[in-house]
Amino acid sequence: MTRPRPLSGFPELRPGDQAVEQIVVDGLRRTFELHGFAPLRTRSVEPVDVLLGKGETDKEIYLLRRLQADEGTTDTDSALGLHFDLTVPLARYVLENAGHLTFPYRRYQIQPVWRGERPQEGRYREFVQADIDIVGDGVLAFHHEVEVALVAAEALSSLPIPPIRMRVNNRKVAEGFYSGLGLADTGAVLRTMDKVDKVGGDAVAAMLTEIHAATPAQAAACVRFAGISSAPGAGMEAVLAAVAQTGVEHPLLSEGLVELTRVVDAAEQAVPGVLVADLSIARGLDYYTGTVFETHLLGHESLGSVCSGGRYDELARDGERSFPGVGMSVGVSRLVGALLGRGLVATDRAVPTAVLVAVVDEDRRSESDTIATTLRRRGIPVEVSPSAAKFGKQIRHADRRGIPYVWFPGGSGSAGDVKDIRSGEQVAADPGTWAPPPVDTAPALHATNPEESS
Amino acid sequence: MTRPRPLSGFPELRPGDQAVEQIVVDGLRRTFELHGFAPLRTRSVEPVDVLLGKGETDKEIYLLRRLQADEGTTDTDSALGLHFDLTVPLARYVLENAGHLTFPYRRYQIQPVWRGERPQEGRYREFVQADIDIVGDGVLAFHHEVEVALVAAEALSSLPIPPIRMRVNNRKVAEGFYSGLGLADTGAVLRTMDKVDKVGGDAVAAMLTEIHAATPAQAAACVRFAGISSAPGAGMEAVLAAVAQTGVEHPLLSEGLVELTRVVDAAEQAVPGVLVADLSIARGLDYYTGTVFETHLLGHESLGSVCSGGRYDELARDGERSFPGVGMSVGVSRLVGALLGRGLVATDRAVPTAVLVAVVDEDRRSESDTIATTLRRRGIPVEVSPSAAKFGKQIRHADRRGIPYVWFPGGSGSAGDVKDIRSGEQVAADPGTWAPPPVDTAPALHATNPEESS
Repeated sequence: MTRPRPLSGFPELRPGDQAVEQIVVDGLRRTFELHGFAPLRTRSVEPVDVLLGKGETDKEIYLLRRLQADEGTTDTDSALGLHFDLTVPLARYVLENAGHLTFPYRRYQIQPVWRGERPQEGRYREFVQADIDIVGDGVLAFHHEVEVALVAAEALSSLPIPPIRMRVNNRKVAEGFYSGLGLADTGAVLRTMDKVDKVGGDAVAAMLTEIHAATPAQAAACVRFAGISSAPGAGMEAVLAAVAQTGVEHPLLSEGLVELTRVVDAAEQAVPGVLVADLSIARGLDYYTGTVFETHLLGHESLGSVCSGGRYDELARDGERSFPGVGMSVGVSRLVGALLGRGLVATDRAVPTAVLVAVVDEDRRSESDTIATTLRRRGIPVEVSPSAAKFGKQIRHADRRGIPYVWFPGGSGSAGDVKDIRSGEQVAADPGTWAPPPVDTAPALHATNPEESS
Repeated sequence: MTRPRPLSGFPELRPGDQAVEQIVVDGLRRTFELHGFAPLRTRSVEPVDVLLGKGETDKEIYLLRRLQADEGTTDTDSALGLHFDLTVPLARYVLENAGHLTFPYRRYQIQPVWRGERPQEGRYREFVQADIDIVGDGVLAFHHEVEVALVAAEALSSLPIPPIRMRVNNRKVAEGFYSGLGLADTGAVLRTMDKVDKVGGDAVAAMLTEIHAATPAQAAACVRFAGISSAPGAGMEAVLAAVAQTGVEHPLLSEGLVELTRVVDAAEQAVPGVLVADLSIARGLDYYTGTVFETHLLGHESLGSVCSGGRYDELARDGERSFPGVGMSVGVSRLVGALLGRGLVATDRAVPTAVLVAVVDEDRRSESDTIATTLRRRGIPVEVSPSAAKFGKQIRHADRRGIPYVWFPGGSGSAGDVKDIRSGEQVAADPGTWAPPPVDTAPALHATNPEESS
């Protein structure tokens, strides 16, 4: 084999960084499970017609083809593609297993997804997502929208990463406002307003008057409305006042503001200062039907949203039966890639091992094995030194792998000494009772100062 | 979307069974980490020439093709395929990152693999494997062969599944015996002997005389040799005596028997009664260069091997630099599919949730949320009831999901009662101090009696 090269779009972490992704995934999973979300792993492939949805053909999908496909015969595999998100497989899984599910169905799913994109700098063609969704049968109570936003905020806040800002809006607020203003095609207005960040308020106002027959006053009101947001920790008071000042009223607007207030107030209790209302968030409002949110790392907004989600009234439909949902998705690969690329996190070690048991002599390897077994039975991850080299070399082997402790087997009748190779402290110890301090039991993630680490 | 159907070869677990795979994977991972194996996740795709190896074109591979591939241009993606095992990506990763690895490199890897097979009953086209490997730089000490066999036995023995039998052989034993017997092309003899289980001793003996120019006496000796095995827990004494009785001697045979004895003796210490020496095991001897093993569930031998592995002197090579390895692979999907299909295991619950906090009234949902938050901060997985239905209905919701405890919020000044809905026992409790017994903290796997469960 010639020296292999990385494949553009298929990022892979270096040995020392692999533990970072694992710890992030474990941390997210821990929060999901604390909130009662059950694991789901779906197959990676779906029939292409399921992936394409209603007649769309512009999706970026990888199709599968068997190398050994039989010439001249109809190969059913040609109709299979790799999933590009975890929502399409969830919808299909819910329909396929509706009879075996207890609703509301709560699942988390952490898997790779693929996008058959043209290779270009910085675009991932394979990446891991971590999703949660709550799916109802026919109905799904509003309080689950609050719940999913809080779980998302809690999951990210529990990681040792830069603080997050979650920006929340509600489709009903925007749609109600446009209706109350007298604009007819609220969906089209939403799509236009979504461009405000890119092209600016004046350009969007011009589009609203030209395309959607809005008066200049209506267009200006839309742009001003999108500028309304709450300050972190300030609650909804100023937002409600600013909306009232527009003079626009509509039942849907009122309903949306009540819902948005419930999300903001609940978040202020659970994760103070993390969540703000921001009426400019149009992200996916075309798809979502209620609450919608996106999440940025403070000081790293250029990364884009690392966690987005919201309420959608129709995840799936089977004849008369519809399945509404609310969910969110963490872009694990994007998040971990950014954390590592910007030097924001580091692990204290890349291996699970807490203790390296030294080997005095190859003939006495079994003594070291016995000590290792005793420690492992007590839940402590242990390796035995690969060779009976001089102790200095064995200690360097531990040091290079980030293993904090080295155990030196004693002579007959003595279990030996354990040395913290960071401090140099060495004590006589019994493998049946000694344990590392909890902080050293498993590798952990630490926030780092980018200036220091680079 | 019309009601979807399962895809042949792409198995997917039902909601209640998803937890089983998760618990099996977590259990394997736990053992791997206790032994200091570090996590690795590689990309799912490799260049096709890497997958095909040295000019082979009969591999069952899925190639990728972009749906949006540009007509008439060279699409580099057409040269990408999904990996069919975790060994090829490991070899490529080691070569690509050799400068960043500390050798011996120890990694575990739990990922799906794909086989582009013709669709047929019972063949998986996507399945999860759990691999461990230890890779050396130029050299790799023999004791790692003992180690990997023991980790494999320990990982499987720690799961609540039927007891396993691990059968071990050593390439040097077979090759040394054939050489000592005077047979020249030992590799070809190995391949022929591999057929003994299928076609029987007489047919294999005939092939040896016809194809490999063995004398009838040599052929008979080979067949007798393959019949030598140790009894569980009996050690190597009888095997060594039977080999000595053949009168065949060769340095490689002696070396192989010493190694095989070390594996058997060490296993007898670590996992008594699990491992036997079996000189008929030819599985992969053509590929492996030292220890080789396969593993069956006792009473379920027809499933085939659920965990196989061994020593290979050349995992990868970069010019003059070679990387020997020893590893093993658990077929997670095959194992879990069989355990479920034969009714051998069950989970006590399909969700992580230990406690459902009931809701007295929608207006008092926040009281239930507060209790849930207090319990979660203490590491207890909790859901709040989706609705403020009558308590009987909320209890049934918990029961259907297998949640063992329901918490009833008290009035003002009282935190409420917690009820074990299995026993009906209900006690006043404080969410700041109450905890379920450890056995109820997380879902667990239980061995079941197939007669009872079916």
